[in-house]
This record gives sequence, C-alpha cells and structure tokens, in this order.
Amino acid sequence: MSNLIVQKYGGTSVATAERLHAVAERIARKRSEGVGVAAVVSARGDMTDELIRQAHEITDRPPRREMDMLLATGEQISVALLAMALDRRGVPAISLTGAQGGIRTDQVHTKARIRAVEPKRLIRELEAGKVVIVAGFQGMNEVEDITTLGRGGSDTTAVALAAALGADVCEIFTDVDGVYTADPRVVPNARLLPRVSYGEMLELASLGAAVLQPRAVEVAAQHKVRVEVRSSFNHNPGTVVEEMEPMEQDVVVVGVTHDRNVAKVTLRRVPDQPGVAHRIFSALAEGGVNVDVIVQTTSQQEVTDMIFSINRDDRVHALEIMERVRGELDAGPVETDEGVAKVSIVGAGMVSNPGVAARMFGALAREGVNIQVISTSEIKVSCLIAEEEVERAVRAVHDEFELGEDPEMERRE
Amino acid sequence: MSNLIVQKYGGTSVATAERLHAVAERIARKRSEGVGVAAVVSARGDMTDELIRQAHEITDRPPRREMDMLLATGEQISVALLAMALDRRGVPAISLTGAQGGIRTDQVHTKARIRAVEPKRLIRELEAGKVVIVAGFQGMNEVEDITTLGRGGSDTTAVALAAALGADVCEIFTDVDGVYTADPRVVPNARLLPRVSYGEMLELASLGAAVLQPRAVEVAAQHKVRVEVRSSFNHNPGTVVEEMEPMEQDVVVVGVTHDRNVAKVTLRRVPDQPGVAHRIFSALAEGGVNVDVIVQTTSQQEVTDMIFSINRDDRVHALEIMERVRGELDAGPVETDEGVAKVSIVGAGMVSNPGVAARMFGALAREGVNIQVISTSEIKVSCLIAEEEVERAVRAVHDEFELGEDPEMERRE
Repeated sequence: MSNLIVQKYGGTSVATAERLHAVAERIARKRSEGVGVAAVVSARGDMTDELIRQAHEITDRPPRREMDMLLATGEQISVALLAMALDRRGVPAISLTGAQGGIRTDQVHTKARIRAVEPKRLIRELEAGKVVIVAGFQGMNEVEDITTLGRGGSDTTAVALAAALGADVCEIFTDVDGVYTADPRVVPNARLLPRVSYGEMLELASLGAAVLQPRAVEVAAQHKVRVEVRSSFNHNPGTVVEEMEPMEQDVVVVGVTHDRNVAKVTLRRVPDQPGVAHRIFSALAEGGVNVDVIVQTTSQQEVTDMIFSINRDDRVHALEIMERVRGELDAGPVETDEGVAKVSIVGAGMVSNPGVAARMFGALAREGVNIQVISTSEIKVSCLIAEEEVERAVRAVHDEFELGEDPEMERRE
Repeated sequence: MSNLIVQKYGGTSVATAERLHAVAERIARKRSEGVGVAAVVSARGDMTDELIRQAHEITDRPPRREMDMLLATGEQISVALLAMALDRRGVPAISLTGAQGGIRTDQVHTKARIRAVEPKRLIRELEAGKVVIVAGFQGMNEVEDITTLGRGGSDTTAVALAAALGADVCEIFTDVDGVYTADPRVVPNARLLPRVSYGEMLELASLGAAVLQPRAVEVAAQHKVRVEVRSSFNHNPGTVVEEMEPMEQDVVVVGVTHDRNVAKVTLRRVPDQPGVAHRIFSALAEGGVNVDVIVQTTSQQEVTDMIFSINRDDRVHALEIMERVRGELDAGPVETDEGVAKVSIVGAGMVSNPGVAARMFGALAREGVNIQVISTSEIKVSCLIAEEEVERAVRAVHDEFELGEDPEMERRE
C-alpha cells in the first residue's frame, strides 16, 4: 500500500498516560496529513520486568512457552490503551495482538523468528480508514501458540509489517535522536548520521549502538524497507537506513562504536591439531555462548593460544564449558579478563580503501592505547583494549577520521 | 470424556504466589488420583480493577472492544503463572487463552455470551496427559476479536467447558463453603445445602447468594452439567447443583435470601390505559435498567400507581428515564425509596404446596415487619421491606421453615 507508514514506539514512549497521549497526538497529526498509519507498540515502562518478577515468584525455571504467554500481555495492554487514546481524539483505531496482526513465527519460544506476515486483516482495517495498532515483540506459531521475539523484538515486528504492507517508511521512535558517529556521552562533538546503509547499520547495531535490533536491520535489508530511527520526544529528522549505491559509499568510516559488555577468554597451550577449534567453538555454541572476536596465536611449537571475546554476562557459563573442553584437549589453563572493552570502526567504503585499519591502529598508538586483539570484516575493524582506556580510544579514533566535522551534508540528498 | 473434571478458581484463589501454589497442589493431587483436569482461572486479586484504572487514566469512555482487549490480559497472566506452578511440581500443564480454548462468543463486547465451544485442542492436550488451564471470562467472536463475558463470566466459561468436554463434574472453587439456607453472617444456624436443583440455584443466584453467576446456572441446566460449589480454603464437600426428580423436591423451601442493593420506584397517578406499562418498562429496558418486582395498584378511579424495584446502582439513571416518561404520560410525581431490601424464599416444591407464601407473610407479621411489595414466581416469593428490618425478617422466615435444623440429611444420597 502506498501513502502508508509504519511507526514503532518503544516502552518509554508509552510508559505514562501523558507519554501515551503524546504518541496518540503524533499519530493523529500524521493521519490528518492523509497518510495511513500502522503502529507497533512495546510493553509500557517496566511492565515486562514486573511480569518476569511474578513468574520468578512462582518458579526459578518457568517453561518458555508459558513465559511467552505471560509476557505477551505487556504489549496487549499497550495497544489497547493507545487505541483508547486515539478514540478519545476521534481518530478511528483498532488494536491487534501479534496473532491478529498476522505475525507468524517459528516455534522457538522466547526467541522466535518471524516466518511470514499475513496482512489480510491489517489491510482490511487500514482500508476501512482505521489506524491499526499491533502488539510488538509477539506472534503466533504453527500450532497457534503465542511466541515472543526476544528483547527488542518490536523493531523486527515493525520492519516486517512495513515489508508486508509495502509501506513508504518504517519509523522507529526511541529516546535518542538517531544514530551518531560515536556515543555523544563519550564524544561531545559526535555527529548525527543522516543516512547509513543496511550493512553499516547492521555492524553499528551489533557493536553496541543500541538503537535498532540487528535482526530488524537484517529483515529491512532483505526486503529493502526504508527505516528511519528518530526521537519520540521531538520532531527532528533522525537517521535513515536504506540501500545505498556503492558510489554513494565513498565515506570510508561512518562511525566509531564501543562496547563494555565484553570479556576476553584465553585458553593456553592448545595442541595445534586439525579439529581443535571446532571442538572448542561448537561446545560454546551448544551452550548458547556467543563468541565474537577469535584469534589464534602460535606461541610455541606444536601448541597455540586460543583467544576470543564473549558477552560479559556469559562469563561463568563459558568458563564451565571451557574447563570441560580443556580437560578433553589436555590444554593449559583457562584465563579470563573482564577489564577489556571493544572499540570498532564501521563503514562500507572500507572494503575498497586499504590502509583504513592501519590509520585506526596508528591513532590508538599515538594515544598510548595497547591493542590486545584485532578482528576485521569487510566493513568493520574491532580492537579489544583495556576498559579504562576506552573513552580516550573512541575520541582518538573519532578525531582521526574527522567524524565530528561535517564534510558531506549533501549525503542525505 | 469420562474421568475428567473441570475446576474453576476465582481471583482470590490465585491472588498471591502462596495461594496459587495451593491451587497447583490441589490440581496435582486430583491428577495423581488418575483424573483428568481442565482448570478455568480468573484474573489475580485486583488486577482487573488495576487495568480499569489504567484505561480511565486515558479516557472516560473507553471503546468496549478495546476494554475487552485490555481486560483479557488479566486472565492470561493467571493461566500462564498457574501452568508454571504445575510445571514446578512436575505436572505437565498447558495454558490457553479463551480463544485457544475454543470459547466462541457473540459480538457483544464486555457482555458477550458463549455461542459454542470448539474443544478440539482441549481434547488433544488432555489426551496428551496435560492439565489444561483456560483463561476464564473471555472468548473470541466471529471476526476473531477478543471478547469478555462480564463480571463473574469465568463461572460460565467453566460450565460451558464441562458441557463441551462431557466432564463428570464442574467444581466452582470460591471463598465460601457452598450455598447456605441463608447468609451465615445474618443467620448463625444457617445450614450448608448439600444439594439444590438448577431452578433453585438460579433463583438463589439471582436473589443475592453471590456464589455462582446466574448465566452459568442457565448453561448448566441446559446441558445437565453437575456443578459443585466449594471452598478453595479447605477440602470439605460443598453444594452440588444438579437435576433433581420432582419426587426429590419435596422440601418446600430450600433457602432464604436477602438483597440490600435495591431501590423502590413509585410512579403516582398513571392513567389506567392499555400500553402504559409497555411504555414505562420498554423505556427502562432500552436504558439498560433491570427491573425486578413490579406491582400495579388501582388506587383511584382511572389512575393507578406503578411500583417496581431496581438495583440501587441504577437509581440516578432510572430517575432520568422516569422523569421523561412521566411527562409523556402526564402522570404524577416519581418517588424513590432506597431504604428498602428484598427478602425471598426459594424452593422448587413450592409450586405444588399452596400456603407457603402465606406462612412467610405470617412469620413477617408476627415479627412486626411490614411488607411493601410482594412478587412471586413458581419457585420463589419475594417481599420488599424496610432495610433496617432485613436481618430480623431473614431470621424469622428461616425459623418458620425450620431450615436451621437438619430434617433430611439423606437428600444428598
């Protein structure tokens, strides 16, 4: 459908009656411009945490299917209240659960993936002139059970709906103004990025710029959905995420990200034999531990050190697994270091610009920051460094690539 | 299905984690006896009131469809938590919304009626050995919207499920021990009734013994579902509601009920013409005012007084309507009296026992209680009296019919 937009409002945007009315007002204004609106809403404020608390009052290990049944009520409350707020303004509106909104998922409870959107009812209600308000974060699987998509899943719901409805744009309303060249709390002259490509956004999202769920970016890229990340507290334009021609991607580095939720794990004296890496990392994968940067150094003859980074939250669990693997491999001790952080540069232009990584290393060296581990992909370079040096490192790299200045305002055109 | 029971637990039975575990324990015990269990659960404690508060924070007039969307979350939370509590005990259980449980209703939001139960999924889960926990009070209409059945609707859900599943009995767990011959707070020697007929229960339910929703009794009578009203705080047997042969119904009066939520309305000097009563009572019905006892007295030539009773809550609304009707009919003034209460006797045997009403009137007269209005049906006699005399009246009538003694313990057999 053309002349239609999908908007997503997060939990803080609907936390109080006042904020909820502000959202209704924004939707009402958009609609008065003759634009159809489908809105996706998250659970209010700390409602999800309150429901989790009630579950843990009952049992330490709630079944995942029942957690989904429980948590889905949070968004259902939000959509009903927002429909009421619109009705009070005389705007015809209808709320729908994820299931009613046609969100069909796989069967993996608490972390389901959207398989399809059946938009028949959505289209019927939109064509009847109603604002359609869909519960984010949830869907229905093949056996008609309620599923949820995991934290941040409402972003994915919104992008998937925009794809299914052929909306002009999917606006993600959040509590920041958009995507910046670096965290403005660390780098005072960080600049709001008017445009980024899907690939860049994916790296930025994964690397700690927590404004958009990576899975939502994947779905957007797959279906070429134009996404705009913007603030629900003002009317400023935000950051547009969309497909960009290679020619447009002449900017080498678009942003510097950092992530403190990192721990470094080192397994010493691993026998240097085929299949060893597979044993280690398949054991971690089976245990649900996400491994990021991996480095293998041949430190002595016939043995090697295996170094990798993980989420700091997974540290205890990863150690258990590694102790078991260590025994099986007859390797040396397992060491962990939580005093690390990750600094990364992201930019699609990097692939055709050799020497970008070297510039980053140089900037860090001049600042006296020691690099512990390096990892690169086609559009990013990540370095593990000591956590206490992270802010200095981010500022140095941000300056090196002159991101705080504004050499190309025309890029948005 | 045989060897299956349906249990319904009200909001106080699941209000705290402790109470919820007690319910799980009761279900687990029943199941360990080899009995299949389908449980229907209400929203926890004051959850429904909390949701209503949130709606009224947004608007004075929430659309009914959106109220249903909102309120249905209360029961969904309860069923998920109860399934978790059973899981913790190692009892396989699955929670279902009303829609998933196959509860199909008409389209009247906030006061929907169950049209059908599609028990396919229920039966599948029960046959898989699971305890099935269904959200009470809610269902789905033809256009796949969520509906609710109105206050007390969980009773009706439970009875309808018992009918659809062919359960052996539908147990309604509440915070009293069952149905008494009179309110034990008023009549200390009131006796728990081991058995009543559907017709008797219907009158008892309608007349203020608030242990079972009248609509639930209607559905039970229609499908011959055996219902037992009992306490969730102990393991005593309660009151069985079931079909009784006329021969069994030799007991003339089974109980005395009273209701203080009553107001008396008198319209003076109504022209004594055909169609007048129709004008008055259709206006009230259109306004949603439920009229109970109606008496018409020919006090003077060609004019009459019209007296009727209503719920006290409807007083202001009823007065507005009556003032309008009074003008149209050119009748005398409208008077209302809130200082009244209703005392009733109920018993299926009454129909074949003339003189029962007279015995009631005699008992009230000996107590010095003046009767203002009388209304009778085949199985009940109701009297409006002054509210301050209601407790004395109930005790006098209870004594008159010797309900506190126990002349027929064998009736339960």
